[in-house]
Amino acid sequence: VNATPLNIAIAGLGTVGGGLMKLIADQGDLLEKRAGRPIRVAAVSAKTRGKNRGFALDGAQWFDDAAKMAAEANVEAVVELIGGSDGVARQVCENALAKGRHVVTANKALLAHHGTALARAAEKANVALAFEAAVAGGIPVIKALREGLAGNRLSRVYGILNGTCNYILTQMQESKREFAEVLAEAQSLGYAEADPSFDVDGIDTAHKLAILASVSFGTEVGFDAVHVEGIRHVSALDIAFADELGYRIKLLGIARPTEHGIEQRVHPCMVDATAPIARVSGVFNAVVADGDFVGSTVFQGRGAGAGPTASAVAADLVDIARGVRVPAFSVPAGKLAKLKASPMERHRGAYYMRLMVQDRPGVIAQVAQALADDSVSMEAVLQRARHPTEAVPVVFITHETEEAAMNRVLAKIAALGTVVEPPRMIRIEPLSQ
Amino acid sequence: VNATPLNIAIAGLGTVGGGLMKLIADQGDLLEKRAGRPIRVAAVSAKTRGKNRGFALDGAQWFDDAAKMAAEANVEAVVELIGGSDGVARQVCENALAKGRHVVTANKALLAHHGTALARAAEKANVALAFEAAVAGGIPVIKALREGLAGNRLSRVYGILNGTCNYILTQMQESKREFAEVLAEAQSLGYAEADPSFDVDGIDTAHKLAILASVSFGTEVGFDAVHVEGIRHVSALDIAFADELGYRIKLLGIARPTEHGIEQRVHPCMVDATAPIARVSGVFNAVVADGDFVGSTVFQGRGAGAGPTASAVAADLVDIARGVRVPAFSVPAGKLAKLKASPMERHRGAYYMRLMVQDRPGVIAQVAQALADDSVSMEAVLQRARHPTEAVPVVFITHETEEAAMNRVLAKIAALGTVVEPPRMIRIEPLSQ
Repeated sequence: VNATPLNIAIAGLGTVGGGLMKLIADQGDLLEKRAGRPIRVAAVSAKTRGKNRGFALDGAQWFDDAAKMAAEANVEAVVELIGGSDGVARQVCENALAKGRHVVTANKALLAHHGTALARAAEKANVALAFEAAVAGGIPVIKALREGLAGNRLSRVYGILNGTCNYILTQMQESKREFAEVLAEAQSLGYAEADPSFDVDGIDTAHKLAILASVSFGTEVGFDAVHVEGIRHVSALDIAFADELGYRIKLLGIARPTEHGIEQRVHPCMVDATAPIARVSGVFNAVVADGDFVGSTVFQGRGAGAGPTASAVAADLVDIARGVRVPAFSVPAGKLAKLKASPMERHRGAYYMRLMVQDRPGVIAQVAQALADDSVSMEAVLQRARHPTEAVPVVFITHETEEAAMNRVLAKIAALGTVVEPPRMIRIEPLSQ
Repeated sequence: VNATPLNIAIAGLGTVGGGLMKLIADQGDLLEKRAGRPIRVAAVSAKTRGKNRGFALDGAQWFDDAAKMAAEANVEAVVELIGGSDGVARQVCENALAKGRHVVTANKALLAHHGTALARAAEKANVALAFEAAVAGGIPVIKALREGLAGNRLSRVYGILNGTCNYILTQMQESKREFAEVLAEAQSLGYAEADPSFDVDGIDTAHKLAILASVSFGTEVGFDAVHVEGIRHVSALDIAFADELGYRIKLLGIARPTEHGIEQRVHPCMVDATAPIARVSGVFNAVVADGDFVGSTVFQGRGAGAGPTASAVAADLVDIARGVRVPAFSVPAGKLAKLKASPMERHRGAYYMRLMVQDRPGVIAQVAQALADDSVSMEAVLQRARHPTEAVPVVFITHETEEAAMNRVLAKIAALGTVVEPPRMIRIEPLSQ
């Protein structure tokens, strides 16, 4: 037994850093037994030194400068919990790797933008780049994809990757309220940030999806190729229609190989209400991997918060202490394929389209003609109660078609005089059980 | 890059062995890229050599004697897919370990009975003992517990671990039929064995639970300490009552540390119909781990079959090829604690009790008195439509009590003249979201 402690440095002592300090303090014996050696916090760095954090920093060397700590502290591994795709966080990771120190990070933005370069640097230094905490919090989904499902060719990986969005959509569903009202409530409860755009505009989900796609398909991390839509345009009316049609609306991140390349997209989806992922509610996260041998495998749990994130960081540290070394993104960085991205216009699927139309004879015929002109075939039309003076909602469900055709249809329909609001479109995602 | 192939021997070419041969043939490039070296089937052994299996055995050395192959074939790893807790399967694993070869096995019975000894032998030889395929098929739950959740103290681990039982219970629920009829149908469809007792009497679930408990709590594998009940006594009537009460009946394997030791039990449970595990239907498996930092994490997928099992075996082989070495049961075999088993009489929980009683005044008072005599308090009583001549079902739901008290109550009630059938008892398992 190697009794040498794994000395680590922690950069960032916010919610997650505090959770990790607590975990290491609480579970010292357990970690040592499992890892074969103690895990010891030898150095820390944060913005303010004097702050009362509710935990002791005794025995850990203090650094005002996290990047300097990463380069100079006498540690084997550096844990980066600062956040942000560039700046100090990036410097911390680069310095640590340059000095041959393992890096553990919860930073999805950093990995989405610089993951491939960091993985190369880690391999060059023969150290680990570990980021279980960056995707789906405490759910060990990176490990599952990179190791547990390593025998499979995946036809798709998708998930609910942002708890804030899932909370808002769940609340909208349950209370039949509009987005703005539920967002304001989520903000007052601390479930959404004062500036919620990172979450509700889908960017956070896109960061995580880019990481999942790389791990799943052995391609370089390609955040810029992700098609991103958020949930601001989801309305109570669409949620009600979804319900009527047997669907739930979820913000999913979805990646899959297609004949045109890897498709990566984040957008609200209509999913079968009986599918496991449709029932993942509130702040929970879930990831589904469709493998050729394993079938569909679902991983579900808490996607954020001090405890779950610390749990994921601790798992990475135990791996490092045990001497486990696996390629960060499933295959060695040098063997990651260049990302050939499938453009969103090539996406194929079924679509939900809701129009607000003047309730006059011939309107549905006009819309049906617009669909037919682009060879988009209809599966269903739903019309709500007639109302002679106001606009009425009409819903069209299409058969599978190409996004480019759907875009042309939407533009044409938006221009119709009888259609009084821009059409709303939500993609329908078929799920395997 | 180490381009030396990982040469393996496969003992057993049945459904799973065939699936593994197919996987290795289909995904050769993928496995090599991920593992850093090719995985090559260098030796095989099965009952009949000449049989047409639908795949080629070219290039693999044939052995009539699997145990001899494990000792003599020129391989780094031996995959045991024969099954059975003793006999050839055990010999194969022991021989391989004795010769310093890694062992990968899907054999839950073997591990439930001899897991600790095999882990000791593997550690002595400094090789891997890997068994992802032994529990929950393709779901990488052993890896999740041993590595992904290594930072957590688990307060409970539980799951639906037998697809046959879950299929039967799901069918009973959906079609309102009795056990015997659904079993016969499952047998004719090939979902249940001609002799179904291993599955429906809970033994298979108990094997898997013993393994999960060891990995979760760092204790020696203790199959003999598992309390085992199957699903034969679950009736359509109890399923209907469960439905009325907002429950589903599932066969769960549950392990948790208590003040009296580790509790390991397999029995039908009433679980909240809205819990994720309640919605796992048909042949699917699911495992839930409740951790102190991560919260509740759910893993769901296909628990059996050629593809999922081969997927799990392949993941273990990729780990071995990558050089990953972690203790088989989370902590080194020498540090596994002796299993202190909590006796079932010490189990605490709420109970569902259904009686068939003569519909006469005073019967409920008699039963209530029997409960009160043992200080078992009632949460609810449900009585179905009255019928003057036949026996009527009456259901009692208790508050949390001790199993020993409940056993006394059941014995007393069984002896009442007005109770015309042995009482049926099903434990209620509270689940965290």
